[in-house]
Amino acid sequence: MQLYSFFNSSTSYRVRIALALKGLPFDYVPVNIRAGEQREAGYVARVNPSAAVPALVDGDFSLGQSLAIIDYLDARHPVPRLLPQDAAARARVLELSSVIACDIHPVNNMRVLRYLQDVLGVTPAQKDAWYRHWIDDGLAMVERLLQSHGHGDWCFGDAPTLADCCLVPQIANAQRMGCDTSAHERAMRVYTHAIAHPAFQAAEPRRQPDHTA
Amino acid sequence: MQLYSFFNSSTSYRVRIALALKGLPFDYVPVNIRAGEQREAGYVARVNPSAAVPALVDGDFSLGQSLAIIDYLDARHPVPRLLPQDAAARARVLELSSVIACDIHPVNNMRVLRYLQDVLGVTPAQKDAWYRHWIDDGLAMVERLLQSHGHGDWCFGDAPTLADCCLVPQIANAQRMGCDTSAHERAMRVYTHAIAHPAFQAAEPRRQPDHTA
Repeated sequence: MQLYSFFNSSTSYRVRIALALKGLPFDYVPVNIRAGEQREAGYVARVNPSAAVPALVDGDFSLGQSLAIIDYLDARHPVPRLLPQDAAARARVLELSSVIACDIHPVNNMRVLRYLQDVLGVTPAQKDAWYRHWIDDGLAMVERLLQSHGHGDWCFGDAPTLADCCLVPQIANAQRMGCDTSAHERAMRVYTHAIAHPAFQAAEPRRQPDHTA
Repeated sequence: MQLYSFFNSSTSYRVRIALALKGLPFDYVPVNIRAGEQREAGYVARVNPSAAVPALVDGDFSLGQSLAIIDYLDARHPVPRLLPQDAAARARVLELSSVIACDIHPVNNMRVLRYLQDVLGVTPAQKDAWYRHWIDDGLAMVERLLQSHGHGDWCFGDAPTLADCCLVPQIANAQRMGCDTSAHERAMRVYTHAIAHPAFQAAEPRRQPDHTA
């Protein structure tokens, strides 16, 4: 398998964690999204019609979107399972993952921040306030969900799931942007537990071949 | 079951389609998100810690996030199935659904448009241009995915899936906001086919009990 990835992309980071948890070998293919490589015609035509990272290529099957990729990996390589089979447990994992993947990450990703800056001409202070607003609001939702339904050392139970694959990159991103995440106690307890795990460490941005300062 | 819904919320609309396709009866509980009812303490504490619609209550189990809810309904009431069981077919459905749920909808939802207007003070013309930019960009991705992988009368095959539950509300929303969606030929062919289906009609905003002009 090949993973098209950018070291600092938090959606790529989610998939790298999943691959590492499952112990699956893959070729890392860097796509520099800062330079717009994800929009190059060859990449869009051959790898990912949605012009984004990550993309997984498995033989002649290529697939975009981090949550779809992790679900696919879970179907093809079910040990360890990242999506529970019990309907209610699975729903909790998907609910928290969706809060991060739909409510937090998209409003703060690079293309949105660039539009704010380049098209709407917002100041750096306004851009930072935008970023922090959605992080604070979104992590408060995550924290309430974990306070209501979380259990064990991980988001939901004694083993990592898709929810942890989403939570860790989001908190790492928030910290990189200077947000104070300490108020979200249960989320931070899971985060601290997760980043000590070898699979989560192997997936860190600074350990990827395309990492730059 | 109870569905907490707002007539004009496109994430609520997705779940209403799924419930109608499965023929499941439910009580409609309106939550006026224009008036901020989704943030009221009782709703957040008892129904949905993530302070949003939709939320599904099934006995003593309550769940937020439209994609998690539809996955849960598929597990509990698998006929008709909205998520294929074959790994590759399922991946295609989740990929397209994620483009809509993660890349298009979140940047144009009400809370983001309000922030642009109330905090950043953008003009109505700038707000419209923002909306159209993400719709044009996002529907172009959807169209490329459908051109590459779509088949049959629906997004993927001869029966509706989660992808159609996501596509129809997104296109209806874009049209309501005055976007020209005609260039996205395959997406519009699926849309036109879908809106003639009784389940999609039953889920339309104008047929909900809380509909207002």
